[in-house]
Amino acid sequence: MKASQLLSPTLRETPAEAEVISHQLLLRAGFIRKAAAGVYTYLPLAQRVLRKISDIVRQEMDREGGQEITLPIIQPAELWMESGRWNVYGDELFRLKDRHGRDFALGPTHEEIITDLVRGEIHSYKQLPLLLYQIANKYRDERRPRFGLMRGREFIMKDLYSFDRDEEGLANTYKKMYDAYTRVFTRCGLKFRPVEADAGAIGGKGGTHEFMVIAESGEAAIVYCDDCDYAANVEKAEAKPQSLAEEAAAELAEVKTPGVKTIEELTKFLGIESDRLIKTLIYQTEKGLVVAVIRGDRQLNEIKLQNLVDTVQLHLADDGVVRLLTGAEVGFAGPVQLPATVCIDGQQVQVQVIVDEEVTLVANGITGANKTDIHLKNVNYGRDFGAHQVTDLRMVEPGEPCPRCGSPLRWARGIEVGQVFKLGTKYSKALNANILDENGKSREMVMGCYGIGVSRTMASAIEQNYDENGIIWPVSIAPFHVIVVPVSAKDDTQMQAAEKIYGQLREMGIEVVLDDRNERPGVKFKDADLIGFPYRLTIGPKTLAEDKVEVFNRRTGQSSLEDIETVAKNIAELIKRELDQLVG
Amino acid sequence: MKASQLLSPTLRETPAEAEVISHQLLLRAGFIRKAAAGVYTYLPLAQRVLRKISDIVRQEMDREGGQEITLPIIQPAELWMESGRWNVYGDELFRLKDRHGRDFALGPTHEEIITDLVRGEIHSYKQLPLLLYQIANKYRDERRPRFGLMRGREFIMKDLYSFDRDEEGLANTYKKMYDAYTRVFTRCGLKFRPVEADAGAIGGKGGTHEFMVIAESGEAAIVYCDDCDYAANVEKAEAKPQSLAEEAAAELAEVKTPGVKTIEELTKFLGIESDRLIKTLIYQTEKGLVVAVIRGDRQLNEIKLQNLVDTVQLHLADDGVVRLLTGAEVGFAGPVQLPATVCIDGQQVQVQVIVDEEVTLVANGITGANKTDIHLKNVNYGRDFGAHQVTDLRMVEPGEPCPRCGSPLRWARGIEVGQVFKLGTKYSKALNANILDENGKSREMVMGCYGIGVSRTMASAIEQNYDENGIIWPVSIAPFHVIVVPVSAKDDTQMQAAEKIYGQLREMGIEVVLDDRNERPGVKFKDADLIGFPYRLTIGPKTLAEDKVEVFNRRTGQSSLEDIETVAKNIAELIKRELDQLVG
Repeated sequence: MKASQLLSPTLRETPAEAEVISHQLLLRAGFIRKAAAGVYTYLPLAQRVLRKISDIVRQEMDREGGQEITLPIIQPAELWMESGRWNVYGDELFRLKDRHGRDFALGPTHEEIITDLVRGEIHSYKQLPLLLYQIANKYRDERRPRFGLMRGREFIMKDLYSFDRDEEGLANTYKKMYDAYTRVFTRCGLKFRPVEADAGAIGGKGGTHEFMVIAESGEAAIVYCDDCDYAANVEKAEAKPQSLAEEAAAELAEVKTPGVKTIEELTKFLGIESDRLIKTLIYQTEKGLVVAVIRGDRQLNEIKLQNLVDTVQLHLADDGVVRLLTGAEVGFAGPVQLPATVCIDGQQVQVQVIVDEEVTLVANGITGANKTDIHLKNVNYGRDFGAHQVTDLRMVEPGEPCPRCGSPLRWARGIEVGQVFKLGTKYSKALNANILDENGKSREMVMGCYGIGVSRTMASAIEQNYDENGIIWPVSIAPFHVIVVPVSAKDDTQMQAAEKIYGQLREMGIEVVLDDRNERPGVKFKDADLIGFPYRLTIGPKTLAEDKVEVFNRRTGQSSLEDIETVAKNIAELIKRELDQLVG
Repeated sequence: MKASQLLSPTLRETPAEAEVISHQLLLRAGFIRKAAAGVYTYLPLAQRVLRKISDIVRQEMDREGGQEITLPIIQPAELWMESGRWNVYGDELFRLKDRHGRDFALGPTHEEIITDLVRGEIHSYKQLPLLLYQIANKYRDERRPRFGLMRGREFIMKDLYSFDRDEEGLANTYKKMYDAYTRVFTRCGLKFRPVEADAGAIGGKGGTHEFMVIAESGEAAIVYCDDCDYAANVEKAEAKPQSLAEEAAAELAEVKTPGVKTIEELTKFLGIESDRLIKTLIYQTEKGLVVAVIRGDRQLNEIKLQNLVDTVQLHLADDGVVRLLTGAEVGFAGPVQLPATVCIDGQQVQVQVIVDEEVTLVANGITGANKTDIHLKNVNYGRDFGAHQVTDLRMVEPGEPCPRCGSPLRWARGIEVGQVFKLGTKYSKALNANILDENGKSREMVMGCYGIGVSRTMASAIEQNYDENGIIWPVSIAPFHVIVVPVSAKDDTQMQAAEKIYGQLREMGIEVVLDDRNERPGVKFKDADLIGFPYRLTIGPKTLAEDKVEVFNRRTGQSSLEDIETVAKNIAELIKRELDQLVG
């Protein structure tokens, strides 16, 4: 491709609306243009990157037996009503009516329509496992689309759906996809981690992993261990419970604490560390009251609590309810001698006490006495209070020991580019997608879903690979491998040498741009750096006189001189080696 | 691919809703499933065909300097308002609002958004020509979606837009695209004709050609010449005007024709042929009255008339207007001594007379006298009446002489799969897409647009290539090239032989399915025919005993026996030769 013919409109200034680096560089390097909030046109350079990512994805899906299909973007509302998501999905779902007034949605995801398809075609366990995927546009009407391709309203995703006869089959398929994802992101040349994650609203109580590209600008906090494989997102992360100094249990006693309610006030008032305090949080849910008990220096992880109780609604109890339960003003609640039920608005409501495992290790702790202006001291789990459940309820903090190996946990920020997900029977149950098993018995298919944000992967690659001059593409997903730059396009000798190398590289299957533009060398170098060609070959008068070409490596910033006769062959071999290494 | 793992659900019965053969076979052979009216899921076999067609299209667009991009499907209404099409497009445009109440359209075509993009990036004639294309979903809310993929509401198109500095540049680009389209459909293995067509509503007064796949089921009538290249769709088709027997002009005279109004009645009443009659049709338009005069045995082509007068509205005048203009009842209008203007509703309205060229060749014709119950005989153009314009106004009929070479014109039916289109400055003017020319003068870019219906091409290929047993794919777009069928999948010897050939073919880059299903041979053969594999290799006990394999050619229906050792190599070479021939 000649640069003079390539539509890659670079900008010198950083567009004001772009907050994150990938958005800035995609605009500046001429990869994308905005058409509306969260809606972009992909220009030729972006198109090439997206195609490379898609091809890698496609190969790895096919390798695990995935079959590519294309599902409609406009989906009839009836299916969304059948699954119950038409009303649940809210404003994020783009909705429209056709000329006859029938309701449609622009697919944000395709569980309904794939389940509808499969229930019509698959009736026997013999036809399973079935893995179907597509690479296509998805639509989400984000409240505040931003960060360029990171949070768009129209974006490209690969979504694969798996159908298995049972949980064991799903586990097997899940493992295959997990491995395929690992290969995809490795081949894309990205530093990433699969992390244990929370299932969230998409449903299913099985496992789920998020694939996170490590980048400072990442929206998600990742907790990981350097000494073993453990990694999780912060909502899901666990740590080994830590016990404090051992101490013999002393006698339970009341302490007057007039007006002293918060952890901070208490530690000051009593002159103790906050890890001696036992914090009691009271939640209202549609399943009754839930009392969560954690150490005073810890933060409660509400997502863990919500999953544990399996509630849809979970919010801190209002003051009136706290008073009814504890008999005291807010600030003096504690787990000791709490009633098992309480009467609220004439209804008897169950009270469930859930204690974080670390609390059971606190010796002679301090907690509210369920009496206004009074706390209890020398409180010990087991002797003074019990629990319906002891488990992990807390947000993990940096430095805590890895739950597997005990090494200190580290933190990083990441961008979610993929997720693998055990759906179980949520959709097959709602939509009656059944098979006959080997005994002729009807059973629901067991499903998984597996997404990769293709356009987001492109942006994430930039968040992880850039410097002050522009993008530094991994070779495997670079729009082109090489740019050949004659210092002066008007100089025939330079142009001839450049054309020759350009032709040689093309013949060897290398993707190359010849910068034939009538621009100053500074402009051409700046554009090459900005766009992020992995290699730049410069043909200048001085080096040409010595039959040499300057080879600039965009990632290392190193330049070297190579013989003009062999440079194309050497660069081509280098690139092919780099690509082969990624395939592994 | 193993047939047992391939999702290709074949049906024995023809689904009742499918009217045309491509729709029937795409459903029966397991290529598509309906998700909503005019909205389909493409299953794995269709996905492969679509990908092959897309790749051919992509290669030929790239070869002519096209650059692939992706434009948004959801497009802001503002651009459609700027071009004036938001209100014009009517019910066919899918419209939706986002959560903030902003209007969007699902793109049925992308002139607005591409012009908006290019006006922002291109400012100099030096940056032209620019050819940008995409392969993506399009949306049209058809009143009555039908015929499967022929007239869907969500469908796949390639659309390329060209930007040139002037008409000459456009003509050059247009020629390139015309040639590229010819290569695309040739490589797809289709019998087709590019035909001159009418510009229709998309705008632009330049030329346009439709690429028609010849098929009996085609919606469009094509007129073509076997002795030269001439071809046009029926709305656009011309023929050499034919003169009748020469005759000296006789004296103009009135004939009483009480109550005789229609051509049929007149020919009977006067005992003459209808080609002696001169028919006068009066139209109302926003530009005044238009009187179209054609021979009595011809049909008026309203599209030609509308383009000629350049009107938006054109309809036959109502009886009152006819009376006002002619002073007679309907049925007695004629071109002789018509007034030049007429007063309608207090407004003076111009009357424009347009005469078909054949009428000027009628000697001593008969026409209405503009008096009730009276006609004129011995009417001659020039002597008795004139015209504002003499031109071609008629529908061509089979057997008329070719306008270029005079050979008899033939008729065929075709399916439009592509169109190339000179847009001119329609959109660049509306959206202010200007460049500076070599003199520093601002001028509008000159545009072209070029579409290929990718999903429709797949359906058209079937309309042209099928028999009572199913589809007969052209090799270049077949989902797979070969199916290997062991007569009994339970027979180890057969399966081993089949596996071996399957492996050999795969290694040679042939796309092959191994039918490993535990089905009766009849079922497997039926499915193979229905899906339309170009070649079927059958491994049966009898032939295997002789070290032979049966090779069945789906298109010719011929079978032959080949040596088991060489069959894979021979078939692979045969297929590669066939593919190479198409590339040309």
